[in-house]
Amino acid sequence: MSNLCGDLPASLPEELVEVLVESPHVRIERIVSTGHASPAGYWYDQEQSEWVVVLRGEARLLFEGDGEPMHLVPGDHVLIPAHRKHRVEWTTPEEPTVWLAVFFGAHAGSY
Amino acid sequence: MSNLCGDLPASLPEELVEVLVESPHVRIERIVSTGHASPAGYWYDQEQSEWVVVLRGEARLLFEGDGEPMHLVPGDHVLIPAHRKHRVEWTTPEEPTVWLAVFFGAHAGSY
Repeated sequence: MSNLCGDLPASLPEELVEVLVESPHVRIERIVSTGHASPAGYWYDQEQSEWVVVLRGEARLLFEGDGEPMHLVPGDHVLIPAHRKHRVEWTTPEEPTVWLAVFFGAHAGSY
Repeated sequence: MSNLCGDLPASLPEELVEVLVESPHVRIERIVSTGHASPAGYWYDQEQSEWVVVLRGEARLLFEGDGEPMHLVPGDHVLIPAHRKHRVEWTTPEEPTVWLAVFFGAHAGSY
């Protein structure tokens, strides 16, 4: 047993990604961001669907074609279908933002 | 977008289970318990593996063969392998306990 909000580093030069579960069809990750955002102009375009929830902190997630990003606070969750382009516009620099992400669909694992 | 800690009923005669994601290989559920426990002598014996996290509240989870249950507080997560018998010994009656459960492996969906 471990805790999703434990072991938060005091400083975080890059996003911290930890794989919690990996199986042929699902991968569960904890992602910790502190002020990180996707690189300018970069869009995620994923083979897998991703269900993601913010557990702590705050973030803004933008889907391609949307005028405004979604503002996510703890407990907010969203399903990102495979190949739905999206980017993280902002995470709060004030504290770590902890995301829980479940990737599933074709080849969610790294095998 | 919705919130995992939103829409918590004021009273809860039975556990509340909501399916958030359902696909052929993964099912994500939010489960809300308020003082609920597994029936006396009942053990879950599941075809799927289950990764579960407590997001709010408190619970005690017992694995068959263990002397003592695990005490789970918000953020605590545990992987329950398929067919590992377990039961919920207790959830706090003081407030709703919100679980997030990801079922995966053979026939995680209800198809």
